[in-house]
Amino acid sequence: MSANDSKRKGPGAPVSPSKSDRGSETRELILATAERLFAEHGVEAVSNRQVSEAAGQSNNFAVGYHFGTKDDLVLAIVRRHSESIERRRTDILAEITDSPDLRDWVSCVVRPMTEHLASLGTPTWYARFIAQVTTHPSLRELVINETISTRSMQQTIEGLFRLLPRLPEEVRQERSYMNRLMIVHMCAERERALHDGTATPRSSWEATATGLVDALVGVWLAPVTARR
Amino acid sequence: MSANDSKRKGPGAPVSPSKSDRGSETRELILATAERLFAEHGVEAVSNRQVSEAAGQSNNFAVGYHFGTKDDLVLAIVRRHSESIERRRTDILAEITDSPDLRDWVSCVVRPMTEHLASLGTPTWYARFIAQVTTHPSLRELVINETISTRSMQQTIEGLFRLLPRLPEEVRQERSYMNRLMIVHMCAERERALHDGTATPRSSWEATATGLVDALVGVWLAPVTARR
Repeated sequence: MSANDSKRKGPGAPVSPSKSDRGSETRELILATAERLFAEHGVEAVSNRQVSEAAGQSNNFAVGYHFGTKDDLVLAIVRRHSESIERRRTDILAEITDSPDLRDWVSCVVRPMTEHLASLGTPTWYARFIAQVTTHPSLRELVINETISTRSMQQTIEGLFRLLPRLPEEVRQERSYMNRLMIVHMCAERERALHDGTATPRSSWEATATGLVDALVGVWLAPVTARR
Repeated sequence: MSANDSKRKGPGAPVSPSKSDRGSETRELILATAERLFAEHGVEAVSNRQVSEAAGQSNNFAVGYHFGTKDDLVLAIVRRHSESIERRRTDILAEITDSPDLRDWVSCVVRPMTEHLASLGTPTWYARFIAQVTTHPSLRELVINETISTRSMQQTIEGLFRLLPRLPEEVRQERSYMNRLMIVHMCAERERALHDGTATPRSSWEATATGLVDALVGVWLAPVTARR
């Protein structure tokens, strides 16, 4: 709602929003609409034209005009959330510093996402959006790189890996996949259940995070069967 | 290829396939086409008409004629695979009988799926199909019930639960979700990578199963953080 706030400049401020206010309102509206449509139907099934229409834009090329390609649009949606997620992760890192407890580091992977989702209220679409884009053949790498390459995420991964037992490289990579898949799909499934009004095993995002951290510590520390 | 085999009835058999042979060939073709399209684009994005067209049916209502509703079509695809999966699970159950090793029971959840996928050669679509239908709001329950309600799966779940430490009901339910999500999405991700020719952490379905079983034993045995 920052676009609205910026209008409240006191009695002397113009009554109608400025052109750049309107531009940023339109961008916000397109991002929110695209996120919802992609979350519901998948990225492939939704055209830029459909996003423009659903966002109430009379110009069918509004998405292209404001964001460029679909890849650019998807990245813009990711970046709309990543600032809040990154800030939460930086805060947790400052708390745990060089903790010797693996749980703290797994927490630092999980909680920024669940806390961010909790902060958005209901309904959210971002968890399902991420589940959709990370199963898309070409967007998959783009989005995973974008979310993993942040400074706070890199520090978290380093801290976590430092505390792991020695793992064969293929197992470390496999468990990194599992770590991502479990967070993405448990969050997406919970988000979907909240939206549809169906049952969820846990009563809150906070409890969901606790369950995820418990399980992921289990995954990282699980004994490795030697290759036959 | 059973439709083809049934044609080979010796010298006296008719050269052109009988009407019921053609019917079952058409059904097979529609099932394979629908599975692939649903795997690639999601169930929502693909209409019965598109399936009929892609399966080369001149009649756009071929899907409806042979299978009824989309739900019926999805269930028919699941059942096309479940016989082989169920048979593998029954074989493993006969081997492990009342094994006291949790690993055997987790194996009995994981391996029937990975061995079935391995047996199909490349490319397969079934893992991605399952990932798509189990994220669909209404099909989700239908398909999960269908795959979980089999006799062999029920016996496996009983055997597995018998060996678990005491878990709060919400945690047991949550870990059941995780178990399913991890198998479904690790298999779907591997299948996608094989199809796209991108890297996979493990070199075979067999090794993928080993990694999944290791990790899932870790999930089931992970200590539970008490609720605050």
